[in-house]
Amino acid sequence: MIHVTIYNEFLHEQNNEKIRAIYPDGIHMCIKRFLECDDISVKTITLEDVQNGISDELLKGTDVMLWWGHMAHEKVPDEVAKKVQQEVLSGMGIIFLHSGHHSKPFRLLMGTSCNLTWREDGDYERVWVVKPAHPIARGLGRFIYIPEVETYGEPFDVPEPDVTVFIGGYEGGEVFRSGLCYRRGNGKIFYFQPGHESFPIYKIPDVQTVIRNAVRWAYPDGRAAIDCPHVTKPGTEG
Amino acid sequence: MIHVTIYNEFLHEQNNEKIRAIYPDGIHMCIKRFLECDDISVKTITLEDVQNGISDELLKGTDVMLWWGHMAHEKVPDEVAKKVQQEVLSGMGIIFLHSGHHSKPFRLLMGTSCNLTWREDGDYERVWVVKPAHPIARGLGRFIYIPEVETYGEPFDVPEPDVTVFIGGYEGGEVFRSGLCYRRGNGKIFYFQPGHESFPIYKIPDVQTVIRNAVRWAYPDGRAAIDCPHVTKPGTEG
Amino acid sequence: MIHVTIYNEFLHEQNNEKIRAIYPDGIHMCIKRFLECDDISVKTITLEDVQNGISDELLKGTDVMLWWGHMAHEKVPDEVAKKVQQEVLSGMGIIFLHSGHHSKPFRLLMGTSCNLTWREDGDYERVWVVKPAHPIARGLGRFIYIPEVETYGEPFDVPEPDVTVFIGGYEGGEVFRSGLCYRRGNGKIFYFQPGHESFPIYKIPDVQTVIRNAVRWAYPDGRAAIDCPHVTKPGTEG
Amino acid sequence: MIHVTIYNEFLHEQNNEKIRAIYPDGIHMCIKRFLECDDISVKTITLEDVQNGISDELLKGTDVMLWWGHMAHEKVPDEVAKKVQQEVLSGMGIIFLHSGHHSKPFRLLMGTSCNLTWREDGDYERVWVVKPAHPIARGLGRFIYIPEVETYGEPFDVPEPDVTVFIGGYEGGEVFRSGLCYRRGNGKIFYFQPGHESFPIYKIPDVQTVIRNAVRWAYPDGRAAIDCPHVTKPGTEG
Repeated sequence: MIHVTIYNEFLHEQNNEKIRAIYPDGIHMCIKRFLECDDISVKTITLEDVQNGISDELLKGTDVMLWWGHMAHEKVPDEVAKKVQQEVLSGMGIIFLHSGHHSKPFRLLMGTSCNLTWREDGDYERVWVVKPAHPIARGLGRFIYIPEVETYGEPFDVPEPDVTVFIGGYEGGEVFRSGLCYRRGNGKIFYFQPGHESFPIYKIPDVQTVIRNAVRWAYPDGRAAIDCPHVTKPGTEG
Repeated sequence: MIHVTIYNEFLHEQNNEKIRAIYPDGIHMCIKRFLECDDISVKTITLEDVQNGISDELLKGTDVMLWWGHMAHEKVPDEVAKKVQQEVLSGMGIIFLHSGHHSKPFRLLMGTSCNLTWREDGDYERVWVVKPAHPIARGLGRFIYIPEVETYGEPFDVPEPDVTVFIGGYEGGEVFRSGLCYRRGNGKIFYFQPGHESFPIYKIPDVQTVIRNAVRWAYPDGRAAIDCPHVTKPGTEG
Repeated sequence: MIHVTIYNEFLHEQNNEKIRAIYPDGIHMCIKRFLECDDISVKTITLEDVQNGISDELLKGTDVMLWWGHMAHEKVPDEVAKKVQQEVLSGMGIIFLHSGHHSKPFRLLMGTSCNLTWREDGDYERVWVVKPAHPIARGLGRFIYIPEVETYGEPFDVPEPDVTVFIGGYEGGEVFRSGLCYRRGNGKIFYFQPGHESFPIYKIPDVQTVIRNAVRWAYPDGRAAIDCPHVTKPGTEG
Repeated sequence: MIHVTIYNEFLHEQNNEKIRAIYPDGIHMCIKRFLECDDISVKTITLEDVQNGISDELLKGTDVMLWWGHMAHEKVPDEVAKKVQQEVLSGMGIIFLHSGHHSKPFRLLMGTSCNLTWREDGDYERVWVVKPAHPIARGLGRFIYIPEVETYGEPFDVPEPDVTVFIGGYEGGEVFRSGLCYRRGNGKIFYFQPGHESFPIYKIPDVQTVIRNAVRWAYPDGRAAIDCPHVTKPGTEG
């Protein structure tokens, strides 16, 4: 069983009628519904939950976390962000969705500004598969077509990724590295660009396929902090 | 003084009137003219020259080679391709232009098929700067605009690059990693996508800037083969 | 079921009494015995087999190939080496063992000389785990101890790896990147340094663990050549 | 002119007689003396200086910073660490020395724990050159010999580096990635392991050569923050 925890700040869906119409019970519930299956179980938490902290029990019991935030990154306590970072370094997988590029845990894990260029014109995007045999691209064709998106553009200030799985091309001609894999400490990280709240992007089957694949890919290979032991000379341990 | 040698197969310009009109004395002469300056000297060679081999003297005297080929990759002798590969491993810089992705030396250095997806509709391309402070992007704005190009698309079967400097976005929505840096052995390699023979792309100032920057970037940091020495235990050499 | 094919040139074991004493029926048979289990089946081939070619059927039916060669790299036909390279690019996993660093398929896939520094004094080696949660390091402690080895030293002329899983430290103070992961095309490649024929290294349980782990890691994520299609503009396919 | 600023916490040299005997006026002054030359000017700052902050003027006027800290990492204010991180992302080069692996700016830039294994037995180390033509290895032989060091061992919890320039091998058989290059944002980062305060390591000519080379390598290619602009559709800017 893969234990997934979805964090969604869950503000747009409550504050904006148009967005509520798309995701009546929140983006997290939409994702939960398409993820849950025989061997994937899903918990969800929102900004309200994490504002007073996040329990060790929850983190230790999570194999893969998903993170969706946008307008309230700063309201996530620093201590929560640091605990999430530490847990990833100990092996927990994590998937940052869309505007999660500016979330505290992503910035802590990348070490860079994670800035990018953007506009919001409802353009279409084609998310091109750069690594056709990568497990995260399994089941896709040459590209994913998304009829309406927020456009993100380069430069995207992140470290050179381990693998560039997807690159998006937008109606206006911009490009953006839309699907990026990183290994940090013992954990695996995937950033996936599609998912602007104003359009029903998480209802697109190919987008759901990517997130499902990414959950399986990010499942921990091992779970332990890399610590800083004082050791004795090899051969003199006895 | 930086000693550059440009290889251009020089067939299109002789066989096709439209292309001859753009590059009357060959792509190599166009590039030579904009590259040559106080501290860059340029030699040129063509398919006719290399069909009987390439001299050690020429290679050892070359700091950075440029390679443009398209329809006659297979006519470049295997021995020439291997010598170029060896010289790059010994430190010579090399810049592969456009359809040079399928040239023998590039394939030898990458170890992959170097296949890609393509169409030729005269679309425009925007070559986006992904690494704004990279020495190869010096002097550019956010993107290079190329009014008419051959479209190249992902997947581009090359190893994950050391640095992705440019990504191109095309009129039709395709994307392509247009500017890629690699270090192999002691040498530096840059692949740069723009340069289809049917359009006057090497006359665009920003394209010239990139090639000029890349020549300076690819200049050898050192020049020696990495060999395979039999050694004695450290401390017992004397 | 994971279908493994082991290539072993199988000359030392026939020509040298001391080595035959260690591996009476060949290194390949030793590896076959510890690899075979409920879900791993193993075929073996030797230099004699491949000198007249290698069948498509064998390659297509192989999920992961292991390659051990040393004194007869040049006797492997170029066409065999190229077919192996192509199959890796199409997704077949491959594990190069010890002196396989100089084999033709490894050099073709790396694009570099694959040279290294060496001496043969029967020193001990500690193979240190650099990535403790990597699937290839599963089940190991901090290091693998190998009482007698051939010493390999840096510089090792290979492309910067995707992941450095192991680094070896030798009695004489040398170091060597002993376990390296690469992705090329659709295939996964692992290089593993231990395995000199003069010592019973493949009988060490931790070494067996690594090879077993690597076979599972290298299992194809997908199996198809990345080709070079001529396409039409997206949206105009119909 | 390259403007270097050296940060040294400067506590060991004041608190410990043995260390003061090695570096009477501090590690920073030793490094300053061997670095300063016609085109390199050096400023120095200590923990006392940064405890009340660090001026924008100093950072903007620094091309390359060196960072030596050990026992008082936590006394460096968070705001100072963040400003240093931001300045690196804007292009300032930085070199972290020895125990600087646990400094706040290094951990912020790496995003990982930066933990490692260690012991302090006064063993010798050989720092092996992995990339012989890299500009940071210019002028060195096959290795740097350091008669007495603090031993650092793998796993070293940092992101996979862009280039592994050096790997150290210790008397006890441990190994450690001793010289690592990273690009983050517009800035270049080099980590260099030698430099334990209890031994006169910065007086070894080869160690001085590496630091001098690294300063030249880390010099900014450009100097500007990568920001997060809201843009209009390309072609509609006018």
